[in-house]
Amino acid sequence: MTETVARIAAVDDDARAAALALQLQLTKPAGALGRIEELHVWAAGVRRTSLPELGRKLIVVAAADHGVSGVSAYPAEVTAQMTRNFLAGGAAINVLARQAGAEVRIVDAGIAGDIADDRLHLAKLRAGTADMARGPAMTVAEAETLIARGIVFARDACAAGVDAVALGDMGIGNTTAAAAITSVCTRLSPALTIGRGTGVDDERFAAKLRAVEQAIAVSAPDASDGLAVVAAVGGCEIAFLAGVTLGCAASSVPVVLDGYPTTAAALIAAAVAPASVAYMLAAHVSAEPGHRFALEHLGLRPLLDFGMRLGEGTGAALALMVLDAAVRLPREMATFESAAVSKAEREVAPEA
Amino acid sequence: MTETVARIAAVDDDARAAALALQLQLTKPAGALGRIEELHVWAAGVRRTSLPELGRKLIVVAAADHGVSGVSAYPAEVTAQMTRNFLAGGAAINVLARQAGAEVRIVDAGIAGDIADDRLHLAKLRAGTADMARGPAMTVAEAETLIARGIVFARDACAAGVDAVALGDMGIGNTTAAAAITSVCTRLSPALTIGRGTGVDDERFAAKLRAVEQAIAVSAPDASDGLAVVAAVGGCEIAFLAGVTLGCAASSVPVVLDGYPTTAAALIAAAVAPASVAYMLAAHVSAEPGHRFALEHLGLRPLLDFGMRLGEGTGAALALMVLDAAVRLPREMATFESAAVSKAEREVAPEA
Repeated sequence: MTETVARIAAVDDDARAAALALQLQLTKPAGALGRIEELHVWAAGVRRTSLPELGRKLIVVAAADHGVSGVSAYPAEVTAQMTRNFLAGGAAINVLARQAGAEVRIVDAGIAGDIADDRLHLAKLRAGTADMARGPAMTVAEAETLIARGIVFARDACAAGVDAVALGDMGIGNTTAAAAITSVCTRLSPALTIGRGTGVDDERFAAKLRAVEQAIAVSAPDASDGLAVVAAVGGCEIAFLAGVTLGCAASSVPVVLDGYPTTAAALIAAAVAPASVAYMLAAHVSAEPGHRFALEHLGLRPLLDFGMRLGEGTGAALALMVLDAAVRLPREMATFESAAVSKAEREVAPEA
Repeated sequence: MTETVARIAAVDDDARAAALALQLQLTKPAGALGRIEELHVWAAGVRRTSLPELGRKLIVVAAADHGVSGVSAYPAEVTAQMTRNFLAGGAAINVLARQAGAEVRIVDAGIAGDIADDRLHLAKLRAGTADMARGPAMTVAEAETLIARGIVFARDACAAGVDAVALGDMGIGNTTAAAAITSVCTRLSPALTIGRGTGVDDERFAAKLRAVEQAIAVSAPDASDGLAVVAAVGGCEIAFLAGVTLGCAASSVPVVLDGYPTTAAALIAAAVAPASVAYMLAAHVSAEPGHRFALEHLGLRPLLDFGMRLGEGTGAALALMVLDAAVRLPREMATFESAAVSKAEREVAPEA
């Protein structure tokens, strides 16, 4: 992990400047595509070229179970059932990935029970976390191994030519872990960081709050120590995805975050390697109230706001389509010169 | 026009109810895809089927010139130059249409000067509007003819099998017309409805404000009379697109609005036929400050907020991708039963 962290460079300011200059030549008023232009410039900095391509897009859905109990409206076996659904191509993320022209890889990062399927990438170290309300979710050594497996996964994908990686998650109970990580990293009260997840009633909402409060009290991890945080209150899939994030950043590949659990993974990656944040794109802000605080802590502005709260990488898949459009525009648009279009006589930046 | 208005029905509540029921069977918590599920239900009501398809998507870019002067940073010849750029495939809308899998049709609704190109759909009645600051932009009869041509265009496209129509506009000066229409329809002061357009300086901004104030004072159109409003302070492309909107609504085909000028066309369509609003999707809220007020007046919530202010249908093209994903999900996702996934034990709707 340390070696990967050392390889995460600052984004390429020259490529960003070249991308900005290119935008001014295209047949449209300066800045008229707003956030879409910013996405191109961002991708240019990350990919270290003024005209980045988004040929191969990969959505990594990491699944794992959670030892914390009584916090979800769904029984724990849904993690494995949904993983089978992913592999069969019937989940929302499969449909959106087809729409976005992205590949989907499903990772067993700690599912309780084994799924025999060659297409499932095995990163499992343990069959889900221990109950974080009673003690650490896993050991620091386990967290480090899961992160390392995420790094290797990302390194291999990037070496194989993947141009962008979107993060997805599946794990009954994982918004509880996301809330705990967010509370530790942002120092906000769990009352602000927990939400209804996939739809819990008042009783389970109260149980979720107690679980997060107890978990933080029991383990009291140091917010600046990403490994300690994810070991104490994390999920196995969150640790793995933190590793994927670090691996992508070290390979100059953009990482598209999805909802709350993947953003919790980003918080861990950012604690381990602050330079990795420049490689992240926040796809959307979810209906989980704490997600907004996690994104603000990272300084990331979400692209979409559709009130989604499914996970799986579904918001990230939608954002991939927008990112694809953003990098395609400067590749295919005419310039003022090539199209013989007159430039503005006097042009000023409009009000925000 | 009257006959078309009479054919605009309420959307199909049975199809909406069936779409909602279908959403509850898909392998995800109820409502977990937020706005994406709402888009499916909306499209179901419009298309009068629980599983609408978005096979053929059409982006109609209507171009025309404006008699009002001194309000743009760009010279008037840019309208024709950009129209040639559209036909050559080099503009932003061409790139985004390819990305969205949509066809683009370019319409000459009143360009000053003739462009000889078979691919250009001719709806022109006059070479742009008169200066609205001095008198009506066009006669009521001309406005009615342009609307009728938009209706015929839409009727033919819908009859040919187009499943959704996105509106786009091109016309130097047309955010001035959009602001005037918005001020008349919403009764908000022009100081609130005008903006920097494609980037004007303070001097032209002041000229734009004076032009809109004078135009409204000179013609004083009745806000409830859509024809009178668009004749007094409209644009030829805005009248044509109002007709396209009415024609689509009469054919049960969704209309995706883009920025300020296309939303001004929607305001005209709504004044003529209030029932047409149910067929509209607001793709995005633009950087033009008045656009937000126009959308609020229509009761439409924009899907995207990217600070765009280009027009051409660029925001609508991005929204088409999202709409495509939304209607594709229920067609391709597994159900709880088919995928053998356990449903929630107890599930409640999460907080907003």
